[in-house]
Amino acid sequence: MSLSSAIIPGFSFASISAGIKKSGAEDLALAFSDNIAVTAGVFTTNKIKAAPVKIAIKRIASHKGQAIIINSGNANACTGKKGYNDAAEMTLSTAKALGIPSELVYASSTGVIGRPLPIDKITKALPDLVKKLSPTSLEQIASAIMTTDTFAKISTKKISIKGKTGTIAGIAKGAGMICPNMATMLCFIFTDIAIKPQALNSALREAVTTSFNRITIDNDMSTNDMALIMANGSLKNTPLTKGTPVYRKFTDALKDITYDLARMIVEDGEGATKFIEIIVKGARKEADALKVAASVANSMLVKTAIYGKDPNWGRIIAAVGYSGIDINEENIDIYLNNIKLVTKGVGAKKEEIARDMLSNKHITITINLNSGKKSAKVLTCDLTEKYIEINAHYTT
Amino acid sequence: MSLSSAIIPGFSFASISAGIKKSGAEDLALAFSDNIAVTAGVFTTNKIKAAPVKIAIKRIASHKGQAIIINSGNANACTGKKGYNDAAEMTLSTAKALGIPSELVYASSTGVIGRPLPIDKITKALPDLVKKLSPTSLEQIASAIMTTDTFAKISTKKISIKGKTGTIAGIAKGAGMICPNMATMLCFIFTDIAIKPQALNSALREAVTTSFNRITIDNDMSTNDMALIMANGSLKNTPLTKGTPVYRKFTDALKDITYDLARMIVEDGEGATKFIEIIVKGARKEADALKVAASVANSMLVKTAIYGKDPNWGRIIAAVGYSGIDINEENIDIYLNNIKLVTKGVGAKKEEIARDMLSNKHITITINLNSGKKSAKVLTCDLTEKYIEINAHYTT
Repeated sequence: MSLSSAIIPGFSFASISAGIKKSGAEDLALAFSDNIAVTAGVFTTNKIKAAPVKIAIKRIASHKGQAIIINSGNANACTGKKGYNDAAEMTLSTAKALGIPSELVYASSTGVIGRPLPIDKITKALPDLVKKLSPTSLEQIASAIMTTDTFAKISTKKISIKGKTGTIAGIAKGAGMICPNMATMLCFIFTDIAIKPQALNSALREAVTTSFNRITIDNDMSTNDMALIMANGSLKNTPLTKGTPVYRKFTDALKDITYDLARMIVEDGEGATKFIEIIVKGARKEADALKVAASVANSMLVKTAIYGKDPNWGRIIAAVGYSGIDINEENIDIYLNNIKLVTKGVGAKKEEIARDMLSNKHITITINLNSGKKSAKVLTCDLTEKYIEINAHYTT
Repeated sequence: MSLSSAIIPGFSFASISAGIKKSGAEDLALAFSDNIAVTAGVFTTNKIKAAPVKIAIKRIASHKGQAIIINSGNANACTGKKGYNDAAEMTLSTAKALGIPSELVYASSTGVIGRPLPIDKITKALPDLVKKLSPTSLEQIASAIMTTDTFAKISTKKISIKGKTGTIAGIAKGAGMICPNMATMLCFIFTDIAIKPQALNSALREAVTTSFNRITIDNDMSTNDMALIMANGSLKNTPLTKGTPVYRKFTDALKDITYDLARMIVEDGEGATKFIEIIVKGARKEADALKVAASVANSMLVKTAIYGKDPNWGRIIAAVGYSGIDINEENIDIYLNNIKLVTKGVGAKKEEIARDMLSNKHITITINLNSGKKSAKVLTCDLTEKYIEINAHYTT
């Protein structure tokens, strides 16, 4: 992606090394809108929420925002009253440096839980950070929010609205603690398209449902997840409202972006060597299809088998069986990519062809329950020694 | 344990290599009671059940049994009509070789799912197997039912009933696919104590609830689990009935045995280097305590942290937070062994002492929710590169 393609009129970005990460890598990022943007957000459903998440949940009720300040290297979660004050101070100092009210600033943190936020390092770095603001720096902030991610995740779309071209661009970080219903997953999306608050909120929720809430790496859900979208209206179009064709166009573009970012998060799962799409068809209800897909996607035995290039469909069907829905074993067909491994619950003796196919990086497991017409898709990755290595030695 | 201590009057055992395992290790085992024993069983709750499990569920309704034939190396699950016929044939041939009705024989299989059972190898080996029956061979059959287990699991207890000494002895296999509510877990228990069918059934269920249903290795639940108990009454005591002191004594001894076996299964978890007890206290309901304990026990991030000797309590509290119960963050205390890592939801800066303690093989994580009086305990193990290695290359 060229730098120019990620410019969103009216937004500027900056990143800097504030000294939070021991490595000296960039760890503080800022997104700023020239004018007050319509803002929507979704947050972790973990009952334990990081301090910046608690503050953001309060502020999002206004549907307004103008800046997001993000640090990596420290989650500011389980840090008590001091942590809450630090998160408030983080937004206040940012607001001062930008000359805007602090209610328009959202803070976001990612990293280790339970360590005091080095707030002094952040406030000290803020003046230089603000000076660096530039419309072309979205890529840099995508890098600055990384923890164990191996590549920066960015996705942009342009859509035309009555002859004008609007831009939507999103960045995300993921890597570990990824589970349906949000994870250690931060996502920030920016658009110059004008849209009504309720419409933006609906569009974001629809997009998150079929993307970030359909991925799993390790079934752990973080205290810090958030997805924020800011729409600053620089395009000067008539603000979009729900139920119109152009709202649908906007929402579809947003869904493409969040799906893209979700896919990248899974591809970059800690230690992953394979990207696995689990598709469940033929369920009576969509919720059933989703339960089966999530059960298979979270099975450590399925994930290690795929890593080992082992077409061990027994582990897949066992995970279907314990998913909690009613199953008719005699109806189940299982495909690995286009190879039918299981017909009516019994092996089709295609293991050898399937084994060759498992050399591919992208694997699709399709399970047809042949009991109805509903389907669901969950994205996951394999489980490798590297995941253990990364997570056995993360804070040390 | 000495050989003599595992003799249960009226029972004999045998094991043999039938050639099911490629390695040539023993893979066929037989347990036989001289007379018809009162029999009870619990089985996998997986909706996909192996053929021998389907047959056993039917036969257990009679509360009668005289023999158990067990093979390792093949699960006989997802093998269709042929698999069912093979399992029936396995019990029929065993019955013929022993000269008893086939309705009194239970078959049990463990190993890879979806491969046809080599029934001919089993029927061919049966005459020699029956010839080997001996009262002292319980240890050998504990070895013959192993798959990826690294040691045989056996536990015995003696209790005195009106001046007579009765024996209860159990064997188990586990290692992978272990999750609450039974797993790839086989357990066979034998006693010479006479007990009424309903009483035996109740005692077994009570024992399983606080042992095999409280362990998790990888959150995967197998198609083949079963725990069977046979009480042949050779002790010639008045059959025990529910609600009596001696029934309580029997049940407590049985609970000790199943807990012992469950603990050994976790200690022998695939690739495990640490045994982890998760104790949750101060919950409003026992079900809440159990949800929290299971959530922490199943967290891959907690398990890898313990492996890495990393007192990363942030992962523990995050898993508490997503357990699904209502949590008051400010009430939570977390201990690692006797070190208080977290006080009222905030780190107590005891990481360095805790890190030293993580060199121990046995780790206790105690979580006090300080919200009520109920508690629960779940046993698990750490997650290591070795688990990945074992499971990435199991069928190949």
